[in-house]
Amino acid sequence: MDHAILYLVPLCGLLGLAFSLYLAYSTLKNDPGPQEVASISRAIQIGATAFMRREYVVMGLTALVFAVFLSLVLNVYVMFAFVIGVLCSALSGFIGMSIATRANGRVTFAARGGLSKALHVAFSGGSVMGMSVVSLAALGISGTYLLFDRLPFTPDPLTVITGYSMGASFVAIFVRIGGGIFTKAADIGADMVGKVEVGIPEDDPRNAAVVADQVGDNVGDVAGLGSDLNQSYTDTIISSLIIGATAQGVGGLYLGMKGVIFPFLTVANGLVTSALAVLFVILLIETEKIKPEATFRVGLLISSVLALLGILLLSLFYLEYPGAFYATAAGLAVGVLIGLNTEYYTYKRPIHSIVLASETGAATNVIMGLAVGLESTVLSMILLGVGMIVAHHFAGLYGVALSGLGMLSTLGFNIAMDAYGPIADNAGGIAQMSEQHPRIRHITDRLDAVGNTTAAIGKSFASSATAAAAISLLTAYSEAVQIVHLDIRDPKVMAGLLIGGVLPAFFASMVIKSVGRTAQLMVIEVRRQFREIVGLMDGVVQPDYTHCVDIATQGALKQLVLPCLLAICVPFVTILILGREALAGLLAGCIVCGIFLALFMANAGGAWDNAKKRIEEGEMGGRGSLAHKASVIGDTVGDPLKDTAGPTLDILVQLVATVSLAFTPLFLRLLQ
Amino acid sequence: MDHAILYLVPLCGLLGLAFSLYLAYSTLKNDPGPQEVASISRAIQIGATAFMRREYVVMGLTALVFAVFLSLVLNVYVMFAFVIGVLCSALSGFIGMSIATRANGRVTFAARGGLSKALHVAFSGGSVMGMSVVSLAALGISGTYLLFDRLPFTPDPLTVITGYSMGASFVAIFVRIGGGIFTKAADIGADMVGKVEVGIPEDDPRNAAVVADQVGDNVGDVAGLGSDLNQSYTDTIISSLIIGATAQGVGGLYLGMKGVIFPFLTVANGLVTSALAVLFVILLIETEKIKPEATFRVGLLISSVLALLGILLLSLFYLEYPGAFYATAAGLAVGVLIGLNTEYYTYKRPIHSIVLASETGAATNVIMGLAVGLESTVLSMILLGVGMIVAHHFAGLYGVALSGLGMLSTLGFNIAMDAYGPIADNAGGIAQMSEQHPRIRHITDRLDAVGNTTAAIGKSFASSATAAAAISLLTAYSEAVQIVHLDIRDPKVMAGLLIGGVLPAFFASMVIKSVGRTAQLMVIEVRRQFREIVGLMDGVVQPDYTHCVDIATQGALKQLVLPCLLAICVPFVTILILGREALAGLLAGCIVCGIFLALFMANAGGAWDNAKKRIEEGEMGGRGSLAHKASVIGDTVGDPLKDTAGPTLDILVQLVATVSLAFTPLFLRLLQ
Repeated sequence: MDHAILYLVPLCGLLGLAFSLYLAYSTLKNDPGPQEVASISRAIQIGATAFMRREYVVMGLTALVFAVFLSLVLNVYVMFAFVIGVLCSALSGFIGMSIATRANGRVTFAARGGLSKALHVAFSGGSVMGMSVVSLAALGISGTYLLFDRLPFTPDPLTVITGYSMGASFVAIFVRIGGGIFTKAADIGADMVGKVEVGIPEDDPRNAAVVADQVGDNVGDVAGLGSDLNQSYTDTIISSLIIGATAQGVGGLYLGMKGVIFPFLTVANGLVTSALAVLFVILLIETEKIKPEATFRVGLLISSVLALLGILLLSLFYLEYPGAFYATAAGLAVGVLIGLNTEYYTYKRPIHSIVLASETGAATNVIMGLAVGLESTVLSMILLGVGMIVAHHFAGLYGVALSGLGMLSTLGFNIAMDAYGPIADNAGGIAQMSEQHPRIRHITDRLDAVGNTTAAIGKSFASSATAAAAISLLTAYSEAVQIVHLDIRDPKVMAGLLIGGVLPAFFASMVIKSVGRTAQLMVIEVRRQFREIVGLMDGVVQPDYTHCVDIATQGALKQLVLPCLLAICVPFVTILILGREALAGLLAGCIVCGIFLALFMANAGGAWDNAKKRIEEGEMGGRGSLAHKASVIGDTVGDPLKDTAGPTLDILVQLVATVSLAFTPLFLRLLQ
Repeated sequence: MDHAILYLVPLCGLLGLAFSLYLAYSTLKNDPGPQEVASISRAIQIGATAFMRREYVVMGLTALVFAVFLSLVLNVYVMFAFVIGVLCSALSGFIGMSIATRANGRVTFAARGGLSKALHVAFSGGSVMGMSVVSLAALGISGTYLLFDRLPFTPDPLTVITGYSMGASFVAIFVRIGGGIFTKAADIGADMVGKVEVGIPEDDPRNAAVVADQVGDNVGDVAGLGSDLNQSYTDTIISSLIIGATAQGVGGLYLGMKGVIFPFLTVANGLVTSALAVLFVILLIETEKIKPEATFRVGLLISSVLALLGILLLSLFYLEYPGAFYATAAGLAVGVLIGLNTEYYTYKRPIHSIVLASETGAATNVIMGLAVGLESTVLSMILLGVGMIVAHHFAGLYGVALSGLGMLSTLGFNIAMDAYGPIADNAGGIAQMSEQHPRIRHITDRLDAVGNTTAAIGKSFASSATAAAAISLLTAYSEAVQIVHLDIRDPKVMAGLLIGGVLPAFFASMVIKSVGRTAQLMVIEVRRQFREIVGLMDGVVQPDYTHCVDIATQGALKQLVLPCLLAICVPFVTILILGREALAGLLAGCIVCGIFLALFMANAGGAWDNAKKRIEEGEMGGRGSLAHKASVIGDTVGDPLKDTAGPTLDILVQLVATVSLAFTPLFLRLLQ
């Protein structure tokens, strides 16, 4: 074969995996701290592992059923790719979370040595997640591709590989919804009894739901976000491979196999640049000379510049098509701008308007938050639209797919930055629970605040990449089912748009209600423990933490199956009742409304959260004022939006798109 | 001319106008009540008239500028049609509101004679609005059409008549936004100081904002809703005329001029059946034997059946094309089902879940309300999609336009039902302020509760009809600018979808913020009066009501211009920068997200409102309980959504669509 260069990709994946093992080692070699710290960390770790084990069992069984279904209605190769996709994605989530739950106590202890020491441990811990996600995705996708490319009797590897994509989406939807319900049910449950009813501080060890809350940070914010971005990444790669195979540059230039290999090389390039950026940031932290925000900004800049440089070289000397570079760069630029827009709306002046509105009560706080959230989506969606036109201008549909890759080209570093936040959050909780010196809590709070914004930026990245990937998948689907015209004036397409447009709302309402129901159970249990356990309020006796973890676990597991099934079934029902054009319209409607709602929910939630933080720092009368109470209500409203419903919408959009594309052979048979 | 039958339409319009004058007379001949009642009614009337005068001045001046612009870039005929559209729409709003502000005190006084007497006056008052809207629309549109059809030297009346459509949209956006900001700023301002801070009941005469609040009910809920539905009606009629002119039935059947005349006759038919239904309901009320809810349900049933019958006869014997009947009937059925869906979500079981969630505080109340609102949109949007496919199946694109007419075929009766609500609400306020016997207030409360649901149903009707009309306008626009393929895979179309999808959010956030800003000023003023006016709290001295009316007036007028300009400018900017396909995509995105958000906001707001009412009736501890406080916050959050932002989205969608269509000749010149 003349494209031996492709073997570079799994090689980079293996190297990346080795690097993340090294990062894991260097995180774990830090002192786990004294007994009181280590034991809490251990409790969180046990809770998180127990939840994840049960979640993976439910997921594994459902995946098994689905795999059999795949082998029956499609073929055994797609099933095989699906299984690899599930395994790689599940593994990356597991690795990342295992390290995160071990890093938290170490951060608490390291904070005794100062901000930089704590940041060092937290960031190392987070970067394990970052590197393992991108490495396993690169390894898994390129490995699957190479395998089916080499086996002589199998179908086209590019039709088989959609199975991998489904596997990643499958894991993502389970982990995101399950983790999302768990974390917010525990969080709201803990806050509503602890802060509001009993009047004890956040993370107080007397609150029975406090460990569940910490576990939630890991299973929701670490594993959930990782699986979410893993899926966006996978879909983006695979859609650009599929489009690349038949891609024609502007002016009819035919790219041939290079059109497929180029995205792979971009992935390898991103892996290497992310690793370099992670290393660089770690060294920068060790100098102890620079603030955390600035450190990350420098890291992001370096990884973006390096990635762009690599893409430029690949476009010019390998693909020999500069249009590919412009398209990818357009995507990267749009991603960065959307990130800045998110930072503005969740950190700058709009926050102040929410803070001011809190003076007149919870209602005005909530109203202003809704207005800020709605407004925050405007520039992002316009940027997505304009970016798409630019990418298309330079490299046609292939360019649109590549622009998604551009957005995610620094993903390894991005996830590292995101995953560090919940680790710092956990470290703060452990400091509070083990009654460390307030200075420790102050340091972890400082890290956590930065983490809040990186998390919001991470979410907007995920949504933007989702849009690019899903639009490419929509195109690939329409080609595959041989749609000639996909005219909006066709009533089936328009009906699809309307129905697809409301799907995210349905999904979001299901997920929000699940959080509400589980939180209600949590409230009842925490109240019961305060009432029935003698000596708990005085701090003499410990509450029963595990029972609360159990409630969150069961609530999450029970309620994640229905939304997952919905997302998988919708394409089948639509195509069978309304036809292939309607399904394409449904995809488009789902993309537009899904991305809009996801951005709205993430940004509104982030804005409410940071408005509360501002007031807690002393604005409008500070903690305990009426404005503070109002802002706590706003924050609580935003919680299930930003951490549960919003992020799962990305996954909904991609799962519907992936299922539509993957089952095309079946659809074509059924439609005949 | 061989279509003399067309003259029936303006004739029906004149008769309808005469009927509404009769209804006005029969409302006004009721006793205005004793001095204390009449004087409050008079104050409301003065405030409402003063606001409307100033609003109409601003609107008139802007319309003048726009008319000059129209005559310059298009032609003087379109300008003329625009002016007629503005005048007819402004007049119907003025008539309806004048009677409503005179009916309120009469209802208060009539309530002494019992529920039926009060209902009689309130419904008669509301039906003036209903009949004058549909009569003036029928008269104005058919008159304009006939005029330009008869004048030998003018262009095609169907291109001219888009000017009328713009006129109706123009009035609607001013009246809806202006009235919406006024009513909610006054309402929130009054409640936040009165109920929350000072602890006096709603509508207490000591509250300085209480008259402004009552004025708001009239300028927002009566005039606003009327202008909103007037615009939906106008656009629906005009889009079916335009599509009808070139309509081909399924199988290529050419309808000729009958395709244009049929929608006109449907309008005349709807006018007559609405008048009959209004008469019937008035007689039914006079028997004093039937509950208000049941009365309206019977009225709705009768008007629907009569309308269907008329449409069936017209389809069979005039158009000789049964497909037109099926399409229209599909629209009517979808409208009724969407109405029932709204009734379910704003009145039945979902309300109970919000009531339960109030137990754990405002945050859970708000979260559950958001979830209910999101879920409530699902069936409506699916019904819209399916209805469109059915209508298209029977009569092609013409069928889609006719399905919109079907939805609005009983509009006269619907508006009558909607407008009665705020009159009853006002009557209750007057009863409270003039310290009538609690029995009076009880009767008006009973009427008001029914009005809440009819209002929510009216809003969902408006949104559904908007969807049908806007989709027809989108089709007409694409034909007019000669778009051959409107393929979603075209990146410009997709970019348009994304940008159009976020337009409603931008618009909504602007309007919500305007309400917030004005409410804040109101709060400060009411607080000031309580602080500075000696003897106010003891009820010895009256507050300065007019100052509060002034604040709401100025706030509304200042802040309505920007959103209006946005809606008008967007099509120009889009087509000039991104091209004609992008504008079509933008329209589609705006329709999907706009209708979704409008339904979400209307239903969530209605649900929060009625959940609060349930608690006030005694559930969860009743008035004064923690659950009640939580539900008041939820209701306040919902207020600007359901009464300001949500309804204006319908108008945004239609204004963007109408402007796009009407300026096509200019666009074609610019694009060359």
